[in-house]
Amino acid sequence: MTVIGIIAEYNPFHNGHLYQIKQVRAQFSDATIIVAMSGNFLERGEPACVDKWTRAKQALSASVDLIVELPLVFCVQPADRFALGAIKILKELGVQKLFFGAEHATYNFDLMAKKTLDVHGDFAKYNESFAAAYQRAVREKLGYSVDQPNDLLGLAYAKANRKLGSPFQLMPIQRVVAGHHDLFLKEKKHIASASAIRKQLEMQSKKEIKKYVPVVTYATLANERIISWKNFWPLLQYQIKTSSLKKIGQLYDVSEGLEYRVKQQMERLPENAKFDDWIKAVKSKRYTYTRLSRLAVIILIQVTPEEVKQVDEHPYIRLLGFSGKGRLHLNKIKKNCSYPIITKVDKNNKEGLMRVDYRAGTVYSLINGMTQDLRQVPLRFE
Amino acid sequence: MTVIGIIAEYNPFHNGHLYQIKQVRAQFSDATIIVAMSGNFLERGEPACVDKWTRAKQALSASVDLIVELPLVFCVQPADRFALGAIKILKELGVQKLFFGAEHATYNFDLMAKKTLDVHGDFAKYNESFAAAYQRAVREKLGYSVDQPNDLLGLAYAKANRKLGSPFQLMPIQRVVAGHHDLFLKEKKHIASASAIRKQLEMQSKKEIKKYVPVVTYATLANERIISWKNFWPLLQYQIKTSSLKKIGQLYDVSEGLEYRVKQQMERLPENAKFDDWIKAVKSKRYTYTRLSRLAVIILIQVTPEEVKQVDEHPYIRLLGFSGKGRLHLNKIKKNCSYPIITKVDKNNKEGLMRVDYRAGTVYSLINGMTQDLRQVPLRFE
Repeated sequence: MTVIGIIAEYNPFHNGHLYQIKQVRAQFSDATIIVAMSGNFLERGEPACVDKWTRAKQALSASVDLIVELPLVFCVQPADRFALGAIKILKELGVQKLFFGAEHATYNFDLMAKKTLDVHGDFAKYNESFAAAYQRAVREKLGYSVDQPNDLLGLAYAKANRKLGSPFQLMPIQRVVAGHHDLFLKEKKHIASASAIRKQLEMQSKKEIKKYVPVVTYATLANERIISWKNFWPLLQYQIKTSSLKKIGQLYDVSEGLEYRVKQQMERLPENAKFDDWIKAVKSKRYTYTRLSRLAVIILIQVTPEEVKQVDEHPYIRLLGFSGKGRLHLNKIKKNCSYPIITKVDKNNKEGLMRVDYRAGTVYSLINGMTQDLRQVPLRFE
Repeated sequence: MTVIGIIAEYNPFHNGHLYQIKQVRAQFSDATIIVAMSGNFLERGEPACVDKWTRAKQALSASVDLIVELPLVFCVQPADRFALGAIKILKELGVQKLFFGAEHATYNFDLMAKKTLDVHGDFAKYNESFAAAYQRAVREKLGYSVDQPNDLLGLAYAKANRKLGSPFQLMPIQRVVAGHHDLFLKEKKHIASASAIRKQLEMQSKKEIKKYVPVVTYATLANERIISWKNFWPLLQYQIKTSSLKKIGQLYDVSEGLEYRVKQQMERLPENAKFDDWIKAVKSKRYTYTRLSRLAVIILIQVTPEEVKQVDEHPYIRLLGFSGKGRLHLNKIKKNCSYPIITKVDKNNKEGLMRVDYRAGTVYSLINGMTQDLRQVPLRFE
């Protein structure tokens, strides 16, 4: 039986994601589909619009068999490190084929990866200088440009796959209709980008999204508070304003005196400033919008270099939910899995292995009012 | 010319406070009246209902000549230490007579102070065991009970006065009508307790308070967001949930493993718990409601023992406002004043001398949206 892996954010789960899963099922009708999903804070340095449980439910309802949470420490990273973390986890879960959306599904990603293995970069904000430098380096190696976000992410997956000994067959899927950054819902189509859907949700136009998402997504979103940086902004301000420079300087990824910019610009902002105003004030050629947004998550959750190192050295697999088929697959692989499989956050792992994710969950729950880890068990769709 | 001192919170300034000032003016018509007022966080461990500028304006409108802010470090203390800090400051400002409200204005506070100078205590929650022990010790020394909050505070002032070489003549004023803790507005009277007024304000019944406060108080309160612990509760939760035990343990007044109780009880509370639920969960015979509320302010503002020591050793006088007479008085005393008189928070003192107050101001302004220190100059009522 084929084991398929997908790396996703599902922010939220929409018809484009459903289309991807249907394509998998069309080719491999009896496949076990495993998703490694970001938790409550995402790769581009932003909170998820609804929590991980709601998004896991949306995905399981669309016939995903097993869904696990990527540790936050893997998520607040540039594409290459994010991809490596996600692929490590999917490899331990016995995945054979990795499906991913791409603007150019005809690319030979494995070959591209081979040629660019020593080029490192940040995919998310490719109009910035660091990202531009990365793309130029890639172009020099390949002889053509790779400049679309999903292509770049696919390349990061392909490189991570190579680094781990190529456990997966790469299965790019042609993306349809909506570009990753498209802001407006396309009328008369049933696929829109997650950004466009979130934009409607933030404007409280929940009804507008009905035709772009599966029924379960619509039903769950209708009941949920839609969350963005706006909600965490008072907490971030509070943290930066009450933290000493020394304390900020000790957090992960704060180097080269960045703590001074972070704090000074916060103090200079007017009282009614927004998250974006702060990022724009701190931003420079060196520090892109995306990098600073990730830094904001690191500051918000108070992630230290030691904690990142610990998860890098001792990854774990946090189960969010499974189908009957997913459960059978788990039983089959668990004795050969090198990483602990966590079904429940308890007294020990909340202060040990899982401490960053646990902390992130408590912060997220301050806004959405729902416990994220304690008293939560994996969702069963059997 | 007589120089009169008053120690106050003015939370908010009401007719009872006005009555006190009128009594002073009746006895000393040309007196210079100086008020040492708590800033944005108060002695019982709670945020002020409106900010220090609004309250200073209310007091200046009622013919106070000079109003200064007590450092936060003096405010988050039991009565004896609070009184000592306030009286040190009033002494440097050349005060000769200290007026204060008392339930028993006929007491000889100076004599009582002499007899109880070595008894230390916490006045604010006198029904708790520690406070009860204090009152028993006082009763043993005096032969009668002192158990009313303003009498107890008056005793603390009298003791501090003695400790500083008795610079002041003590002038107790009989309190009228409203008890300190009276919760309900007395109909057909024009004096109500500050607690009763705040209760109405929190219930959004602003009109109800009209007859209990001067016109300026009413006008300013009508435009302001009324603030309580409810507003700071998300920030406090966030701070405690993201802080390590070690970090909490390094703050001022956290001893005997109190950090464990503080954090454990926070984590055990349901998602919809309120500030009071947390205090009640942490509370014990040893740790009273008031002490824990003060601790909550210490945690919220991240006050360290070194910072408390620094202000104790190097007090300063922060000007909030003055009348013409107040300005003349300032000019007269400033060359003999041993403490720096601060009219403006700038780059140096916001990270030095004034750092705790500055931080408290930035936290308060997160809720009320008004800058508290930078770009603020003393109010002039000339």
